[in-house]
Amino acid sequence: MNYNELVENIRTKKSFLCIGLDTDIKKIPQHLLSFPDPVFEFNKQIIDTTHQYCVAYKPNIAFYESLGASGWQSLQKTLDYIPKNIFTIADAKRGDIGNTSGLYARAFFDKHAGGLDFDSVTVAPYMGKDSVTPFLEFKNKWVILLALTSNSGSNDFQLMQEGDEKLYERVIRTSQTWANHEQMMYVVGATHAEELAHIRNLAPKHFFLVPGVGAQGGSLQEVAKYGMNADCGLLVNSSRNIIYASSGKDFAEAAAIEAKKLKEEMEKLLS
Amino acid sequence: MNYNELVENIRTKKSFLCIGLDTDIKKIPQHLLSFPDPVFEFNKQIIDTTHQYCVAYKPNIAFYESLGASGWQSLQKTLDYIPKNIFTIADAKRGDIGNTSGLYARAFFDKHAGGLDFDSVTVAPYMGKDSVTPFLEFKNKWVILLALTSNSGSNDFQLMQEGDEKLYERVIRTSQTWANHEQMMYVVGATHAEELAHIRNLAPKHFFLVPGVGAQGGSLQEVAKYGMNADCGLLVNSSRNIIYASSGKDFAEAAAIEAKKLKEEMEKLLS
Repeated sequence: MNYNELVENIRTKKSFLCIGLDTDIKKIPQHLLSFPDPVFEFNKQIIDTTHQYCVAYKPNIAFYESLGASGWQSLQKTLDYIPKNIFTIADAKRGDIGNTSGLYARAFFDKHAGGLDFDSVTVAPYMGKDSVTPFLEFKNKWVILLALTSNSGSNDFQLMQEGDEKLYERVIRTSQTWANHEQMMYVVGATHAEELAHIRNLAPKHFFLVPGVGAQGGSLQEVAKYGMNADCGLLVNSSRNIIYASSGKDFAEAAAIEAKKLKEEMEKLLS
Repeated sequence: MNYNELVENIRTKKSFLCIGLDTDIKKIPQHLLSFPDPVFEFNKQIIDTTHQYCVAYKPNIAFYESLGASGWQSLQKTLDYIPKNIFTIADAKRGDIGNTSGLYARAFFDKHAGGLDFDSVTVAPYMGKDSVTPFLEFKNKWVILLALTSNSGSNDFQLMQEGDEKLYERVIRTSQTWANHEQMMYVVGATHAEELAHIRNLAPKHFFLVPGVGAQGGSLQEVAKYGMNADCGLLVNSSRNIIYASSGKDFAEAAAIEAKKLKEEMEKLLS
C-alpha cells in the first residue's frame, strides 16, 4: 500500500485506528480451543467484527513465533484473511547486518520467495543504516523505525544526549536520509504526548505509529493534538483493550464495541 | 548450559570456535534439494563433520524465518541434532516491551511451552531494561546483548557520545546491573580489534561473541590478543567461510577442514 492509498483510507473510513493482534493462546476464550487453529479463529472473528472501524492491523510477531511452526501458519492465514484495503504491520522489531536484514525483509515482504506479504515491518535502529535499508528495497513496503518507545526502558538509552541531540532524535534525523515519508514511519510512544509536538517538528510529513493508547496509558486526544498533521499522519494502536474486551463467547462483539468507540472519537478528532 | 560448563568445554576442546549456521536454501549444494528437508540435511552434515572443532553453533534465525513454517521446523530439527555439550545461540536480535520480550523468551528458551531450547539469544538493547530482563528469568539461559557490532552502520548510533561515554559503552555499563557474567555476554565486532582491549576493561569477566572474523574481515590473533581473559571469555564466530567452503558434494568435509584450521589456531592462542 502506498502513502496516498493509506491517507485516502483514513479519509474514507474516518479512522486512524490500528488494531494490535497480540493473540495469546493462553488468553483467548476457552471455546475456541476446539477449533483446528484457535489463534486464527480468534483473529478471523476479531477481523470480521472490527475491520470497518480500523485502517490497520498489527500482528505482534512474538505471539506467533512463540508457537513455532504452527504459529507461523496462523500468522500466514491471518494475513491472508485481512481485507486488502487495510494496512498490515508486522510488529517484529527486527534489525541485523545488511544481508541478514535482507532475509528478514524476504520473510515479511516477499511472497514470491515464500515469505509473507505485509505492508510494513517495525525495525530497531541500533545497528544503523545497513540494517534498515534492505527493507526499503521493496516497492510500496514500509519500514516503521523505533524512535521513542512507550515502555519504561525507553529512558535507558533513547534519551542519551550528544550536544543538543538525543539518540531518538538522531535516529529520526539520520533515517530521513535513507527514505522519505512515503516509505518510512516512526514508532512514537503515547506516554510521551508532550514530546509528540517536538517530534512532529523533526518529521513533519511522516506517519507515526503510536502504541500505548489504552493499556499503556496514553490519551487519544493528546496524541491527536500534538501529533496530527494535514494528512493525519497518525496510526494509533490499541491491542488488549480491544481484543480482550471480553473473555467470553461474545469476545468479537465486545471487541467491535471498543473499536467503534475509538473510531468515533477519532472521527471527531479528524473533522 | 552454565558459565562453568562453557569454560570447561573450551578447555577440553581447546577451541572457542562458534560456527554460524547461516543456511541459505539458495546457496546449499544442489544435490541436497532432493532431500525432504534440505536445510536440515545441510546442517546435519555440517554438524557431523565440525562438532569436534567448535564449542558453539549459532543459527541465524533470519535464514529460517524467511522460509516460514517449514523454516521453523528445520530450525527445531537442527537444534535437536546439536550435541548437548555444545552451546547454542539463537542469533535473533530480538527486543520488545516487557511482555512481548517474555514471549520471545518463551519462543527460544521454553521447550515446555512449545518453544525451542536454545542456551542463548542475541538481543538488541535499544528499548532498554524491560526489553532484556524477561530473557534472564530462565535459569542457565543467556542474553547476548548487542554492544559494538561489526557492520558499517554500527557508526550511525553506537558511537554517539554523552560526556565521556559512548552509547555502546553505556549499554555495557548499564546492562551489568541487570545480570552478571554468568547470564550475559556481549556482541563485539572483530572489525574493532583495538577497541576490544577497552571493552575488556569495561566488562572483565563477560564472554564476548565476536562475529566478523573471516568474511567480515577481522583477525583472530588480534581478537585473542585484545579480548581474551583468564577464562578465555571469547566465542569467535565464523559462518560463511566454513559452511560454504565448497559448493559441491564435499561441502561438509570442506567445512571440517576450515573449522579444523581455526580450531588449531585457537589451540595455540589458548596455550
